[in-house]
Amino acid sequence: MKKLAIIYVCLIGLFLLYIYRYHFEISHLRLSSQEETAFQGQPNEKYVMITFQSGMDYWKRCLKGFEDAAEELNVSVEYRGATQYDVNEQVTVLEQVIARKPAGIAISAINPTALTKTINKAVEKGIPVVLFDSNASGSKAFSFLGTNNYNAGVTAAHEMAKLLGNKGNVGIITSPYQLNHQERTRGFVETIYQKYPQMHVVAVKNGKGDVRASKQAAIEILEDYPDVQGIFATEANGGVGMAEAVVMLNKKHVKLISFDTEKQTLDLVKKGVIAATLAQGTWNMGYWSLQFLFQLHHRLTSSSRSGDLPLPVYVDTGITVVTKENVDRFYAR
Amino acid sequence: MKKLAIIYVCLIGLFLLYIYRYHFEISHLRLSSQEETAFQGQPNEKYVMITFQSGMDYWKRCLKGFEDAAEELNVSVEYRGATQYDVNEQVTVLEQVIARKPAGIAISAINPTALTKTINKAVEKGIPVVLFDSNASGSKAFSFLGTNNYNAGVTAAHEMAKLLGNKGNVGIITSPYQLNHQERTRGFVETIYQKYPQMHVVAVKNGKGDVRASKQAAIEILEDYPDVQGIFATEANGGVGMAEAVVMLNKKHVKLISFDTEKQTLDLVKKGVIAATLAQGTWNMGYWSLQFLFQLHHRLTSSSRSGDLPLPVYVDTGITVVTKENVDRFYAR
Repeated sequence: MKKLAIIYVCLIGLFLLYIYRYHFEISHLRLSSQEETAFQGQPNEKYVMITFQSGMDYWKRCLKGFEDAAEELNVSVEYRGATQYDVNEQVTVLEQVIARKPAGIAISAINPTALTKTINKAVEKGIPVVLFDSNASGSKAFSFLGTNNYNAGVTAAHEMAKLLGNKGNVGIITSPYQLNHQERTRGFVETIYQKYPQMHVVAVKNGKGDVRASKQAAIEILEDYPDVQGIFATEANGGVGMAEAVVMLNKKHVKLISFDTEKQTLDLVKKGVIAATLAQGTWNMGYWSLQFLFQLHHRLTSSSRSGDLPLPVYVDTGITVVTKENVDRFYAR
Repeated sequence: MKKLAIIYVCLIGLFLLYIYRYHFEISHLRLSSQEETAFQGQPNEKYVMITFQSGMDYWKRCLKGFEDAAEELNVSVEYRGATQYDVNEQVTVLEQVIARKPAGIAISAINPTALTKTINKAVEKGIPVVLFDSNASGSKAFSFLGTNNYNAGVTAAHEMAKLLGNKGNVGIITSPYQLNHQERTRGFVETIYQKYPQMHVVAVKNGKGDVRASKQAAIEILEDYPDVQGIFATEANGGVGMAEAVVMLNKKHVKLISFDTEKQTLDLVKKGVIAATLAQGTWNMGYWSLQFLFQLHHRLTSSSRSGDLPLPVYVDTGITVVTKENVDRFYAR
């Protein structure tokens, strides 16, 4: 009996010891996991990305960046958008998203003004909003993340000069009524003019953002200026169109620089028909949009700590020149 | 005996149950705390901020942003710099920092070219480098975070127009040989010219970045053009100098816009001598410099996941207009 009682007491003692250690370690772990929560979201924290023509390949890498950041921060994301190139549809989608009070909204504006009122409504309701890819500069959104299109044109000009040994006549196929394309054209033209005295821009044609119209524009350039050595297309369909023209007219010595990284463009780079294409920092747009929204939602951002603006007002996500050498990195995954 | 044995068995059962729960909860907590380590640095992870004229007030809010981000990410920081306005001293400091292989370096370049070779050496050794406030655009640093000086001039022009009811003659005091001041002047002049047909920039004078020279320049403007309604100074000493001139000549109706948020400037805003001053996003420069370096050091950034550049190439940290209403937020803390 006495022995049993001793075992009994020992067991209770061990038991209590275990409970003690258990509580100690648990509370310790809980504390340290609290310390790390500055960059740890709640699973019910949802961030929404909104685009237009939402099925376009172009958005895939934006969304991938958005999702990659969400995974790091342990929050969830949703992808929404106007399926068509339709202003009213995008406004409606944005209204629907606002009604569900998400933790933040990253939106690419179909045009610079149509969404301003609705974006402001979201901000006034306390929902963080950032713009990416296409800005609505008059709105109350906290930041814009996108390409500096003028600089993209500058990069294209330097690349063209490299391809042509700093001399020769060149043409441009663009969409002259869209601001981003105007800027790309201006950056290209001014750089050629200022830095390459032996190069000349001899033609700027409207490709209408369309493969067939761009092909026709390229044919006109190549026939009107038989000594043209290179063409720069400021958007993807223009790139495909001019490639078709060059192949058709058997003018493969003409150096082509295109824009963006649609599969068709990358295939033409791989084949050597297009010498280079300019990749926008789409992954970075999505990734940093989510980081910014997270910072606003969790009030980590400066407004609570300094006189500064809540976020940097503009982030230039940069341009990468894609050639045969690095083209494989740009196929969608 | 039998009763005792039952109690005995029950106790052992309870004991085992407890151990089981304990192990379960511990492993669960351990797992979740591992999940959170993407934004959790090591305490021995040191990030260095390097400036020139390192005692200047101006850097304090940059460093505060750098420190605030470090605290969130649980890493440590160090502040270094050339004490003088001395190119060689800053190169030496940078060399010393590189030798100790820090986790990352944020540096404000004393001039656009002198540090390029040393910055490139750091990057080639695998040390992440970003530039803030003053760029060295030819270097291999991953990003530049700073004010868009042209836009700052644009903001100053709109503010001046607001103060003067969109009409009147204005002057500028600047440092005409420094790029950032050229840009501020250009943004101001072009905006007045394009947007305010009833306003005219009648004088642009060299204040030499010095209070006394700026005071003299302001006196000349005020005496040569007695109808001048406003003066914009593109840097802090110019602001103090023109304030002294206006007080001395008893021309307190002239609206003054200055730059930056040194204590003397803020005091003059508070007194109403200077109508407004432009605050740069210095906290944001420091805060996002550290966030960017952390991302590079931990390879969270895009290069490992996409064809994109490792970081956005440029971050515009924005401008805030400081007036009597919000001046208190800008005193150093």
